[in-house]
This record gives sequence, structure tokens and C-alpha cells, in this order.
Amino acid sequence: MMTICDFNRGPYPARIRIAVVELGIQEKVRFVEVDLRTGAHKKPEFLEKNYSGTLPVLEIEDGTFLAECTAITEYLDHLDPSPQLTGATARERGMIHMMNKRAEIEFLDPISVYFHHATPGLGPDVEVYQNAEWGEHMRDKALRGARYFDKVLSTRPYVAGQSFSMADITVVAAFVFAAIVKLEIPTHLCHLHEWHERMLARPSVQAWRDMG
Amino acid sequence: MMTICDFNRGPYPARIRIAVVELGIQEKVRFVEVDLRTGAHKKPEFLEKNYSGTLPVLEIEDGTFLAECTAITEYLDHLDPSPQLTGATARERGMIHMMNKRAEIEFLDPISVYFHHATPGLGPDVEVYQNAEWGEHMRDKALRGARYFDKVLSTRPYVAGQSFSMADITVVAAFVFAAIVKLEIPTHLCHLHEWHERMLARPSVQAWRDMG
Repeated sequence: MMTICDFNRGPYPARIRIAVVELGIQEKVRFVEVDLRTGAHKKPEFLEKNYSGTLPVLEIEDGTFLAECTAITEYLDHLDPSPQLTGATARERGMIHMMNKRAEIEFLDPISVYFHHATPGLGPDVEVYQNAEWGEHMRDKALRGARYFDKVLSTRPYVAGQSFSMADITVVAAFVFAAIVKLEIPTHLCHLHEWHERMLARPSVQAWRDMG
Repeated sequence: MMTICDFNRGPYPARIRIAVVELGIQEKVRFVEVDLRTGAHKKPEFLEKNYSGTLPVLEIEDGTFLAECTAITEYLDHLDPSPQLTGATARERGMIHMMNKRAEIEFLDPISVYFHHATPGLGPDVEVYQNAEWGEHMRDKALRGARYFDKVLSTRPYVAGQSFSMADITVVAAFVFAAIVKLEIPTHLCHLHEWHERMLARPSVQAWRDMG
């Protein structure tokens, strides 16, 4: 049995909760809550598990802690010899990792920075340093990112190509975070919204929404 | 034959140049220069290849452009059925991806942000938006990152465990960028420096240095 330390409504935790259902390994994991609202993820005890002070963290059977969603997804996806979320061929792996990283740096992560720097975020006890101008700059970057992904999805059914992958999950997480910070994804980005409707209909994403 | 668009002294390009030598595939790639100093990587023609406007970019045989060092490394490492840089087992893959990402977000990327925001960077024509306070904040984060990696390397010979991996290359790139921006890695971080000396002795890193 593996343990996932997370906060169940968090956008980054959603990435792994969705991956777990996609991989059908719900019976192999249990969840332990780390309360973001009280800054439990910035306390020394938690930083021993993850230096970066972020959620989620996966504890595997030998006691090793794995942080970073991409790394956790790589681990879970390779427990079975046929990976489903990170690609089978070199080209698939390259495309999925590129689009996954791009989804992070151009869309999801900028929304996170906006939240933590240009809004009250998790409150003054947790947000000990804020740079509001940087936060606003990142909000604008995220909106440009949304336009980019709309263009990508006008040419193919999934973020990294012809199949669902880890990169789709990361863009779903950007929508989750956008809803939390009330950042509107413009309705005229119809390819992106049409894709998102398809994602919401997937059992893995449905399960995450039903949990809330 | 594959084409790598890069700038030969760039810290991120160094990651792929070192990986190419580690994998012994020098004969399969040719390099094309994109001049960072004139902002060629921010021009529309280049942005068609890589939306994020960063180097390096790998063009593979079918004309696909792959950006992001981790994605390019994944691609190159899986051209052969036995990956050497990204891990063989689920646990190795998880550890390597975690430590690689951590090397990016806690050490290499913050130095890049410091360079582009709190120093003249690539000059006023390229650095169209700067946030000096954020840049300084990131410099301090990078120095904390150096301390963290010193601690990691007091417990194991390589960044992600008992073997050389992509994560080591990323920390090497942080040293490359630190030298460019004259950010001193404190000499008392002896485990980190001892590791770096071993890295400098590797033929792949030596080849990159000799090229300059």
C-alpha cells in the first residue's frame, strides 16, 4: 500500500488523483491530508518529505518519498510494464513530456503564481513573501497559454497527440486552478473548451469532481 | 540525422550537448545556432518551433520539433531500448524525474530568472519586461537550493541516487549558469563541490568545456 499526502481539492493533487483512477490503482493507495490552509506543507516536518514544500507527495513501500507530479506519474505509470500516461515510444515520450512541461510553465504554474502573489492566496501566515506585479504578469501569461492550447487542440484531439496522456491531466489541473482563482478562460477558445468538456466526461475526472 | 537548434554556451543547451555525448550519439545530430544575443529565440519564426521561445529545440527526422530539455532527454534516451539517463525501473524513473525537476525549480531556473530580471540579461532589446525584486528573490532561492543539493550529495554519490542520471546534468547546468552570472556557490558546500569536480572529469562534460 502506498500513501499519498495531499489536499483533496488542490489542483496539483488533482493531477495524481486523476492519474490513479486512469491507471486503475485506487486499491493500492491511501490518502493522508496535509492542510494547505494552515500551511502544514511549509512546516519542517513536511519539508523533510519534500524540500520544495508542495503537494502531493507519494510515499512508496520502501519509505521513499516522491514529490513532483510528473515524477509521481512516471513512477505510477511504470508499475505496469505498459505505460498508459507517459508514452510507449521515444517520440511519444518526447511529445508527452514536452506538452506536459508546457502545460505547467505556460498555463498551470502561472495561475499558481498569480494565486500566491497577486491574491490573498493561502493567507498572510502562509504567504510570507508576495510580489503582486509578478503575480499579475503570470496571470497574463496563463491567459496567453490558454490561447496557445486552444490552437493546439484545433489540430489534434489530445494535448500531446492522438491519445490521452499525462499532458491532458496537467491542462485539466489548470482549469481546476483557474476556477479556484476565478480566472475566466475566454469562451471563444472553443477548441479548448470542447476538449475540456470531453475531459470532464472521463470517469477519472468525473470521480475527482464527485469527491468534492 | 537530427538537428538541434541551440546556442553553444547556453546553460540549457549544455544539458542536451552533455546528454548527447553520454549517449554516444554525436554522429546522429547536427547543431544549428540560434543567436540568443540578438533575441532570435523570441522571433515569430522560432516561436513556431517552440512556443516558449527557449533553447534548445530538437528537430527529429519526421519534422517534429521537441522543446524542453527533459522531454528532449527522454526522447534521445529512449532511441535505444536501454535508457541510461532517465532510469530503468519505476522507482529509478520516479527518483530521477523528481530530482531533475527539483534541480530545475530550486537551482537552475532561479538562476535564469535572476539573470533575466535582476541583471541586464540579454540586453534591453530582448529583456522587454524585468522584475528586479523577483530576480533577487530567485537568486536567494538558488543559493538555498545549492545548500539543499550539498546535503543530498552528503548522502549519495549522484543527485538521484547511486548512478549518474539526467538529474546530475541539470545540476551541472546550474553551475554553468552560476558562472555566467558570477553567482558564487559557497566553498563550504564541500559535498556539492566534490561532486562537481567529479562531473567536470566526465568525458561528456569535458567535451562541452573543451568546445568553448
